[in-house]
Amino acid sequence: MTGMTVEILCVGTELLMGQVLNTNAQFLARQLASLGITAHHQTVVGDNPDRLAEAYRLALSRADVVITSGGLGPTVDDITKAQAARVLGKELVQLPEAEEMVREAFRAMNRPMSANNLRQARFVPGTRVIPNHHGTAPGAIVPAGEGRFIVHLPGPPRELEPMFTESIRPWLASMADRVLVSRYIRIFGMGESAVDERLRDLELGGNPTLSPYCSTGEVMLRLTASAESEAAARPLLEPVEREIRRRLGDVIYDIRDDDGGSLAASAIAALKARGATVCTAESLTGGLIAATLVNVPGASDAVRGGFVTYQTETKTILLGVPADLIERCDVVSAEVAYAMAAGARERLGADYALSATGLAGPGGGTPERPVGTVFVGIAGPKGVRTVELHLTGDRERIRTLTVKHAIAQLLRETRETEE
Amino acid sequence: MTGMTVEILCVGTELLMGQVLNTNAQFLARQLASLGITAHHQTVVGDNPDRLAEAYRLALSRADVVITSGGLGPTVDDITKAQAARVLGKELVQLPEAEEMVREAFRAMNRPMSANNLRQARFVPGTRVIPNHHGTAPGAIVPAGEGRFIVHLPGPPRELEPMFTESIRPWLASMADRVLVSRYIRIFGMGESAVDERLRDLELGGNPTLSPYCSTGEVMLRLTASAESEAAARPLLEPVEREIRRRLGDVIYDIRDDDGGSLAASAIAALKARGATVCTAESLTGGLIAATLVNVPGASDAVRGGFVTYQTETKTILLGVPADLIERCDVVSAEVAYAMAAGARERLGADYALSATGLAGPGGGTPERPVGTVFVGIAGPKGVRTVELHLTGDRERIRTLTVKHAIAQLLRETRETEE
Repeated sequence: MTGMTVEILCVGTELLMGQVLNTNAQFLARQLASLGITAHHQTVVGDNPDRLAEAYRLALSRADVVITSGGLGPTVDDITKAQAARVLGKELVQLPEAEEMVREAFRAMNRPMSANNLRQARFVPGTRVIPNHHGTAPGAIVPAGEGRFIVHLPGPPRELEPMFTESIRPWLASMADRVLVSRYIRIFGMGESAVDERLRDLELGGNPTLSPYCSTGEVMLRLTASAESEAAARPLLEPVEREIRRRLGDVIYDIRDDDGGSLAASAIAALKARGATVCTAESLTGGLIAATLVNVPGASDAVRGGFVTYQTETKTILLGVPADLIERCDVVSAEVAYAMAAGARERLGADYALSATGLAGPGGGTPERPVGTVFVGIAGPKGVRTVELHLTGDRERIRTLTVKHAIAQLLRETRETEE
Repeated sequence: MTGMTVEILCVGTELLMGQVLNTNAQFLARQLASLGITAHHQTVVGDNPDRLAEAYRLALSRADVVITSGGLGPTVDDITKAQAARVLGKELVQLPEAEEMVREAFRAMNRPMSANNLRQARFVPGTRVIPNHHGTAPGAIVPAGEGRFIVHLPGPPRELEPMFTESIRPWLASMADRVLVSRYIRIFGMGESAVDERLRDLELGGNPTLSPYCSTGEVMLRLTASAESEAAARPLLEPVEREIRRRLGDVIYDIRDDDGGSLAASAIAALKARGATVCTAESLTGGLIAATLVNVPGASDAVRGGFVTYQTETKTILLGVPADLIERCDVVSAEVAYAMAAGARERLGADYALSATGLAGPGGGTPERPVGTVFVGIAGPKGVRTVELHLTGDRERIRTLTVKHAIAQLLRETRETEE
C-alpha cells in the first residue's frame, strides 16, 4: 500500500483529566514516522461510548488504519473494542485463541483469573489477535472493510510499546511496498536553529528525508531513505550523511542505525574501549552526573563512583579543596572546579574525574556571578582543564545542561587521548 | 456559564512526527480539571491549513471554548490564527496594542526585530490580546460567535504555562458561576488499585470530587469542592479529607492546597524544621537520591553531600565498609547497606544518612538475589535501620522506586524523631 494513511486514537478519561501524560501518542507517531508514515491526526477521547463511536466514524472516513490505545481492560467494559464493533456493525464474541492468551498471561503472572477477565478475549470474528507479553489484555488487528483496519493496543506504555514493536510494526512494514532505512545523528553543542540553518536545503522532503528531534541542549537528526530494498536504500543515505558531517563537524558525537544513543552511552563506550574509569565531584548537580553515567547498562566497569559535595565545607572534607582557595576565589570558580576534579581523581584512583560547581538558582546570583554561571572541571592523564558556562533557564534546565556539558567534555577528552 | 465545554486543539507537525512530547495537552487538561471543566476532546493536527480549518469547525460545533497551542510564530505563516480567522469568516489585521507587545518583547530580550516578527501582532478585530512574558508571540482570546471563544496559546511550554496560569485561567474562572477549592493528598507506599479500592465509594462524582493522579510508586489525590464562594466550598472538603485520612492512615505523607509537593520537598521541610542535615551513600542509584533531594529549592541548608560508591571497592575506600563483610554477606545485603549509611553519617557529620545497594538489572540477578532486590539503610541519632525491598520493572523504574523508598524512610525517621 503506497501512501497509507494512519490515525492515532487514544482512549481514556485519565488522559482528558490530565492524570496521565500521553506518551503513547508520541511513541506511535515516532514509530510511524520512522516507517515513512505520517499520522495526520491524533485524537483523545474519554471512556464515553457515543463520543468514541463518533471518533471512530471520523477516523475511518479519512484513514486506512486507525490505531487505538487504551480501554481494553475489563473495568471499562471493553469500551474501545465494543465501540469499534458497533461502528463496524459487528458483535464481539469470545475467541478461543484469545481466551488461551488471557489464561496463559494469568498463569505466567501466577495470578488468579476472574470470569470478568475473560472479557479481554472478546473480539469481532475475523480479528487477528495479538499476544500481550507484558500484561493480560491481548491486542488486535480488526478488519474494518474496504481494505481498512482498526488496531487495538493496550494503554500501559510497557505493554503497548513492545506489542507495537514486535507485532504491529512488522505488519505495517509488510503492507508497504518500499523499505525504509534510517541513520540517527546526535549533536551536542549547537542549537536547534543553528543546525536548521546549516541544513535547511537538505530538509526539503526528498529522499532521504531529514527530521530533527530536540531535547534539552541536544538535537538528534533522523535521516531516512526509502527504496525497494535495504541494499538500494542504504547508498542513498551516504552522500547526505557525509554532507551533514562536513557541515556540522565535531558537534556530531554519535551516528548509528537506531535512536538509542546518548552522551552518556557514548562516553561509557569510549571509556570501556580504552579500559579507563571515571569518577565525579558534584556540587550544583548533586549526583546527577554520576547517576546519568550509571544509567547506561554495563556502566559498572567504567564508573568508579563519586562525591556529592553540596555544602561548601564538604568540598574541603571530602576532596581536600583548600578552604582559603574557596575563600579567595569563590566556591563558584574555575579554581574550585579544578581542585574538585583533581581531588576526586586522586582519592578514587580513576583515570578521569568530572567536577561541576555553579549557581542553579533561583536565588544566589550576583552581578559578577549570575544564576547559570557554572564551572566544569575535567581531570585526566594529561592534567586538569576547566570550562566556564553561562546557562539560562530554570533550576532544572541549568542542572540538566551542566550534566550534558560535563559528559560532553569527558567524551571529548577520552576520544582525544590516543592510546 | 455553567457546564462550559472546552476542547484542546494542539497544532504542530512536530507533534504528528513524534518529535515533541505533547505536555501541553496534559498541562491544559489538568488545569481545566482543577477548574471543574472536562475537555471531552483533545486533537492534534499539523501545519496543514485545510486539516486545521476542519478541526476548528468540528471543535466549534461541540465546544464553547477551543484552546489552541502552537503555530503562532512567523515561520509557519501564523497558521493557527489564520485558519481560525478563515473559519470565522474574518480577516487578520495588525493590532496596535499587539504590535506594542511584540516590540516590547524584543526590547526586553535585547534582540533585533525583523518585519516578519510583526506578523505576530496580526489578529481578528475584537480579539483580546494576551501578553507573553516569556516569548515574543502574544496569545489571544478571539470571540467566535454565539458566546463561543477561540483561545490561542504559544507552543513552547515555558510560554504557554505561565500565560495560561496568569491570564486564561482567571478568565475561565470568571465565566464560571461557582468557585472551586482543592486539596492535594500525596500517598506513598500503597498502590493505585489499593487506594482506589479503599476510596471507591468516595469517588462517585459528588461534591467534592475525588481524582487520583499516579506516577511511579506514588498516588496523588485531588479533592475538589465547588460552591458559590471559597468560604462555602472549604467546609465541604473537611469531612471527606478526614475520612480519607482515617482510611489510608500513614501512607499519606503530605496534604496541601497546591499540587507542588513531593517526597523530597516533604523530607527537606522536615529536616529544616529540626535544623537537621542528611547525607547519602549510593550504589545502584548512582547519585540519584542526592540529586532528588538537591532538586528542592533551598535544600542547601539540609543536604550536606554524599558518596557514590558504585564499584564494590569504593564502598571500602570511601565509606570504610569492611572488605570481608562484603565478601561474607554479599555487596547487596542489609549488612552492607547498614555499614554504608553508618560510614557516610560519620564521615560527613550529618544527622541522618541514607544508603542504597541493590540490583537494578538487566543482568546480575541470581535465584537468591533476583534483579529488583534492594537494601536501603537509614542512619540517624537513634541508630541504623535497614529495609529490604523487592522491586519490579526495568532498570529505570527500580532506580526511581529505590530513590522514593529511601526518601520516604528519611521522612518517616525525621518525623518520628521528636525534638
